[in-house]
Amino acid sequence: MEVLMKQTITTLNKYSRFVPKTGVYPKGYKVGSIHCGVKKNGDLDLALLTNINGSANAAGVFTTNKFKAAPVQISKKILKEKNGSGIESFIINSGNANAVTGKQGIKDAEDMVIVTDSVLEHSQNSSLIMSTGVIGQNLPIDNILKGIPKLALTELGDSHEHWLNCAKAICTTDTFPKLITKQFKINNDTYTLAGLCKGAGMICPNMATLLGFFVTDAPVSPSALQQILQYSVDRSFNCISVDGDMSTNDTIVAMANGAAAGELIDNKASSAERFSKLQDEIVDFAQKLAQLVVRDGEGATKFIHIKVKDAVSYKDAKVIASSIANSNLFKTAMFGKDANWGRILCAIGYSNSDSIIPEKTSVKFISKNGENLDLLINGEPELVDESKASEILQDEDLIIEVDLGTGGEQEADFWTCDLSHEYVTINGDYRS
Amino acid sequence: MEVLMKQTITTLNKYSRFVPKTGVYPKGYKVGSIHCGVKKNGDLDLALLTNINGSANAAGVFTTNKFKAAPVQISKKILKEKNGSGIESFIINSGNANAVTGKQGIKDAEDMVIVTDSVLEHSQNSSLIMSTGVIGQNLPIDNILKGIPKLALTELGDSHEHWLNCAKAICTTDTFPKLITKQFKINNDTYTLAGLCKGAGMICPNMATLLGFFVTDAPVSPSALQQILQYSVDRSFNCISVDGDMSTNDTIVAMANGAAAGELIDNKASSAERFSKLQDEIVDFAQKLAQLVVRDGEGATKFIHIKVKDAVSYKDAKVIASSIANSNLFKTAMFGKDANWGRILCAIGYSNSDSIIPEKTSVKFISKNGENLDLLINGEPELVDESKASEILQDEDLIIEVDLGTGGEQEADFWTCDLSHEYVTINGDYRS
Repeated sequence: MEVLMKQTITTLNKYSRFVPKTGVYPKGYKVGSIHCGVKKNGDLDLALLTNINGSANAAGVFTTNKFKAAPVQISKKILKEKNGSGIESFIINSGNANAVTGKQGIKDAEDMVIVTDSVLEHSQNSSLIMSTGVIGQNLPIDNILKGIPKLALTELGDSHEHWLNCAKAICTTDTFPKLITKQFKINNDTYTLAGLCKGAGMICPNMATLLGFFVTDAPVSPSALQQILQYSVDRSFNCISVDGDMSTNDTIVAMANGAAAGELIDNKASSAERFSKLQDEIVDFAQKLAQLVVRDGEGATKFIHIKVKDAVSYKDAKVIASSIANSNLFKTAMFGKDANWGRILCAIGYSNSDSIIPEKTSVKFISKNGENLDLLINGEPELVDESKASEILQDEDLIIEVDLGTGGEQEADFWTCDLSHEYVTINGDYRS
Repeated sequence: MEVLMKQTITTLNKYSRFVPKTGVYPKGYKVGSIHCGVKKNGDLDLALLTNINGSANAAGVFTTNKFKAAPVQISKKILKEKNGSGIESFIINSGNANAVTGKQGIKDAEDMVIVTDSVLEHSQNSSLIMSTGVIGQNLPIDNILKGIPKLALTELGDSHEHWLNCAKAICTTDTFPKLITKQFKINNDTYTLAGLCKGAGMICPNMATLLGFFVTDAPVSPSALQQILQYSVDRSFNCISVDGDMSTNDTIVAMANGAAAGELIDNKASSAERFSKLQDEIVDFAQKLAQLVVRDGEGATKFIHIKVKDAVSYKDAKVIASSIANSNLFKTAMFGKDANWGRILCAIGYSNSDSIIPEKTSVKFISKNGENLDLLINGEPELVDESKASEILQDEDLIIEVDLGTGGEQEADFWTCDLSHEYVTINGDYRS
């Protein structure tokens, strides 16, 4: 009972801290959501986003898991066939992942696309599809196919509430909906971004998956959008870890409809400056969105930012950051508020990176208030002030900075949470 | 209190089930152990093994962690300089890993070798050294250097008790000492193997590490011994996982003194048959020893054997087995006795292997009694009998068989345990 109350309070806190009360939304989109009958508890389980004027471009980054769910296979195929142009809608169900569902699964995913395009009067293959939830069971496809017209014809809108409900409708084990918006200028043009995602870690393939999408009213060519999306995901959703498990359904897609006008942003020399500005904005935006997944990590009590500096390459810095972020020993030490720097060092050492020179490696904690605590300087252990360490580790937020001292000056950021009793409870007792 | 009692009972059970009451030991060795003052609780913390007649050969496999502890650096150097011949002793302390201890650490390790060789009247650099325990603190070297002569001159013997105490003296967080012996014949020659190791997972770099050694009275050339050791470790200690963390001190060494006589076993064509027989014996022996580490996995309630069949290569089969064995989601499901095959499939899918063809993949559980439960056949999910699944999952032991159906016929075995609340408690609360 006490545990339940504690969990409820934690959830409420997260809700009020991380869920926006208003938003500024990109022009030319409508979104909506309903309960169509996938989730047994009556929660919202079907979401739709559509571009309402003209034609939009889209891009996608998908799981590299060899067992790709049916919606992943179908969305990849559509994006490829249309070269990223003329994609007008995203249709997403939660509660069932349509993964490892054989031929029936592929047909169900195709039917969802056909019905969505038809009811919105789009040409064929104008919709991308995502699913998240239980693996290995067929979709209740009748409920979904009946739900799509109802949703498309009566539930679409562009208010903050519509967007927030859309974010709720894609949730599974999440404790709060994940939605952010942002307005920015490129030269004299004002553009808006809205981003939604779900995932409480990539940590529950039975009711799981990381899904995300962001849409903008900037005019972006399909190839520029794909390039920016891939670059941003590499530096955001691919730089977070709750438990290192990558799902069969992971999907991040983007849409740009150009409703805010301005010159087309392309990945050609002529628009290099605007491309670069847009990319910077989207990287920052994607990182903020991805961080919400870590904040909602199952059982998480800590939000840890790992910063690896002065590597010989970005890839190398990221390999080291990822190794620390995925170490169970490190994560349990963080849960125990233990300044156990040996575990950080150990994870750096087995990361298979070329940037490691033990006698040049330095490691420190940085508190939320910017206070530094040196743990290792140029490979020599510091005498750590345990009371100061303990003080810094009381906070929810912590930065761990690893300076590799190679002179290469490349750096990477990674975000992770701790590994708690509650994680084991959630994932051990899930189906019982 | 209840938890404490439960833990005590579990420990006693493990002790009586996995600790031998007698043993058959190889000729020509003496072993001993004392408390010299590294461990604060007065437990045995210094162990010595020495060859008593003639000259012995040795081989070693060491951690690939970039932060190698001082004893690892020194033992590697000695083995290399002597090409594996004329190595007569192993000296091991527990309670302090002598890792990340700078120049003082190297000097301390060198001094331990010098004193051991001197007191045993061996020529210089005849001893290999191992340490395990706390990282980042200098050894209480005076206690150790005073302890070595006492140990070498008054405590050596060849009784079962001597060997068992030696196994106890290398323990840290282990709940039972790990010792096995075996006698076997190659043609008409009878040989004996004794093996000792420590580790409750590679899971506690603050008081941690996997150390192991085995000694035989077979006559084996240095290069044959090195080749057999590497091959055996690849199929035993490198095929177990408690939490995937590789320590700064991991070391497995072997010694062969030829005291049982017979023809020299070399890795040349002329002794190919005897080499191959010895290798088979040692692989089997090393697997049994390595499995004891999984049995003692911190907080473990399950012993899981993962068998991946019909891959295109051994390496590929092992990559897949390792991916399953290291998945937190899989490990928590096992703790929860949940037949959640989606998590197994998911871990296979992200393992980066070339052997995966989703529509040819089959997965099943096999109980200790040989009962089969199909979960996935040729990529199609089975309707799982949950009551039968639940029955199979009550047992401590479980085999998970993955058949990749590639026609390549290569297979790998891997052993792991579950991830429990107790693991988080042990590792989160360790220093508090």
